[in-house]
Amino acid sequence: MHKEKLAIGEFKLEKQEGQARAGLLQTAHGLIKTPVFMPVGTQASVKSLSPEDLKEAGAQIILGNTYHLYLRPGDELIRDLGGLHEFMNWPYPILTDSGGFQVFSLAKLRKITQEGVEFSSHLDGSKHFFSPEKAIEIQKNLGSDIMMVLDECVPYGADYDYTRASVGLTTYWARRCREYYPEGKQLLFGIVQGGFFKDLRVESARQITAIPFSGYAIGGLSVGESKEEMLKFMYFTAPLLPEHKPRYLMGVGKPLDIVEGIRAGIDMFDCVLPTRNARNGTLYTSQGKINIKREEYKRDLRPLDSNCSCYTCKNFSRAYLRHLYVSRELLSYRLNTIHNVHYFVNLAKKARESILRGEFASFYGQIKELYLDD
Amino acid sequence: MHKEKLAIGEFKLEKQEGQARAGLLQTAHGLIKTPVFMPVGTQASVKSLSPEDLKEAGAQIILGNTYHLYLRPGDELIRDLGGLHEFMNWPYPILTDSGGFQVFSLAKLRKITQEGVEFSSHLDGSKHFFSPEKAIEIQKNLGSDIMMVLDECVPYGADYDYTRASVGLTTYWARRCREYYPEGKQLLFGIVQGGFFKDLRVESARQITAIPFSGYAIGGLSVGESKEEMLKFMYFTAPLLPEHKPRYLMGVGKPLDIVEGIRAGIDMFDCVLPTRNARNGTLYTSQGKINIKREEYKRDLRPLDSNCSCYTCKNFSRAYLRHLYVSRELLSYRLNTIHNVHYFVNLAKKARESILRGEFASFYGQIKELYLDD
Repeated sequence: MHKEKLAIGEFKLEKQEGQARAGLLQTAHGLIKTPVFMPVGTQASVKSLSPEDLKEAGAQIILGNTYHLYLRPGDELIRDLGGLHEFMNWPYPILTDSGGFQVFSLAKLRKITQEGVEFSSHLDGSKHFFSPEKAIEIQKNLGSDIMMVLDECVPYGADYDYTRASVGLTTYWARRCREYYPEGKQLLFGIVQGGFFKDLRVESARQITAIPFSGYAIGGLSVGESKEEMLKFMYFTAPLLPEHKPRYLMGVGKPLDIVEGIRAGIDMFDCVLPTRNARNGTLYTSQGKINIKREEYKRDLRPLDSNCSCYTCKNFSRAYLRHLYVSRELLSYRLNTIHNVHYFVNLAKKARESILRGEFASFYGQIKELYLDD
Repeated sequence: MHKEKLAIGEFKLEKQEGQARAGLLQTAHGLIKTPVFMPVGTQASVKSLSPEDLKEAGAQIILGNTYHLYLRPGDELIRDLGGLHEFMNWPYPILTDSGGFQVFSLAKLRKITQEGVEFSSHLDGSKHFFSPEKAIEIQKNLGSDIMMVLDECVPYGADYDYTRASVGLTTYWARRCREYYPEGKQLLFGIVQGGFFKDLRVESARQITAIPFSGYAIGGLSVGESKEEMLKFMYFTAPLLPEHKPRYLMGVGKPLDIVEGIRAGIDMFDCVLPTRNARNGTLYTSQGKINIKREEYKRDLRPLDSNCSCYTCKNFSRAYLRHLYVSRELLSYRLNTIHNVHYFVNLAKKARESILRGEFASFYGQIKELYLDD
């Protein structure tokens, strides 16, 4: 079906079931089969994993954080050393965020103007400035396959007037990003904001989708709102995005959230949950979430998940994984992370396969039942 | 040459150059080619490495710490789960120490009697007692290929009278260990002590080698003495051990120390140096020691060691390794450890090959020149 080679940036819808879609997105470093989950490699490394681990876990594309890489080791250094792919020895697709979200969540002393955002580094307090053009420049230096426009992610609880003004600013910045980088091998995605106001989501989507981007993201969700509110705005915003472009839900979420997102017609996801939770001993299985530190696993010779084909499940018992975790052994982080990344990547893959078979509704039902309380 | 199958415990000398020897030792989990370096896997894990990492780095045998495994997760639990090999998924040889050294260096409130040693756990303060028989019982539960007798490792600076009495105690305990475990698939090694007194080393060697063990170790070195003193006592003690049994220098040491040991006729080595130093960013190369955090590596695209074939050197630049280290990324520990373990394991392997070729003297000269100041 996808034997013919797609052009870079081309997105082909293969099959649809309700709003859920299976598609193909071509990038400079390879084809991405959607829906897809992208593990987060903040500092040019998905914490504790090697490129081979990621590949073996089934990752097609990973995410790098522009804010972190700009501060350390520096985007110009990465450019001089051949780009982020070369630097971290990951020859497959990479998406970079614009740095905006981290500036608003990690950096100190932020000052936002029409020109951009001034902030102090969380590492050493040094002052920096991101304009829309600067955000693109950094991502060009990193050489990612998919770049994101600089946006303002408004904090949860922001009022209507602030959010409306912010929508305007985000559109203004998006336009400047597109003008600064009209086209090239690196794709550029726009981001729809609008907080938790339906009319502002509509307005932001109208303005952002009027600018020609290779894909469109929903930003500003999973910022502190309830699960119900998140789902409401996700389901409301997804259909506002163009049908024939990839849709990306930023920073979401739990397994069920991802499957809800796929049901809403979203194609791409990223979240730190599988990697962060792995380091806390919280692991996802075909029977639901477990915490490996529990006493009940002390003598449990079974793999974490007998339905899982990851390296960890093929080679080690729960008893050993519990011992490593309790003993704070470094290998614990890696084995747990391999498993969780495999789980999230395969969740999206299974959703894709179920769409291709026309059985997504049943898949959605299974996942919903499994994570009823999470 | 070693096509005929050796019996478990059989040690075959293949070649000798001066005192340096190349040999083969058969264990229940495979043949060990000596000289050999054994990476330390204290808590059923060589810190940050998987079994595949160890195998790929060339490790033939690893060491487990009886004291740690007895306290957590417990030797009886490991026995019930199929033994240490099964527990950690390492199907190759394992040596366990007797726990004595850790009791004397890590545990609190020790009380030594003829019967054994009472101590408090460094984990929770709970009281425990190791008799010679108990040390064997634990190691039987762990199922290691090579067990060590319980010994007293006297602290550096211990006086003559104390050390002389301790030699007697160590011999008494060694005999009890042998009587408790007369023979079986697990090999049992004796340990020569005697502190820094030549006549006591002679006396200890005489007494210990009078007991039939499958191999003999030199204990009580690298406990705080000068490099010169360590080498003096190593060169003095090695020839006191039987020629046709494997000789093991416990807990030593730096690369040059190991090559000096091989020159003195020792066959087996273990040390935490490669793994611990890896986590501190100190890496061993064919050009000597480097610290990866140094500014000079910031833009260095070369591998750590262009003469090295380890996974780390084949895939990553110094610039990336520096970035991971400076950013405290978990992957840093693993990549550095893979390299250092590969270095130490291959140092012993190269020494072996040079002995087999009759060129050990020249190999020794090279290593001596490289580590003149270390």
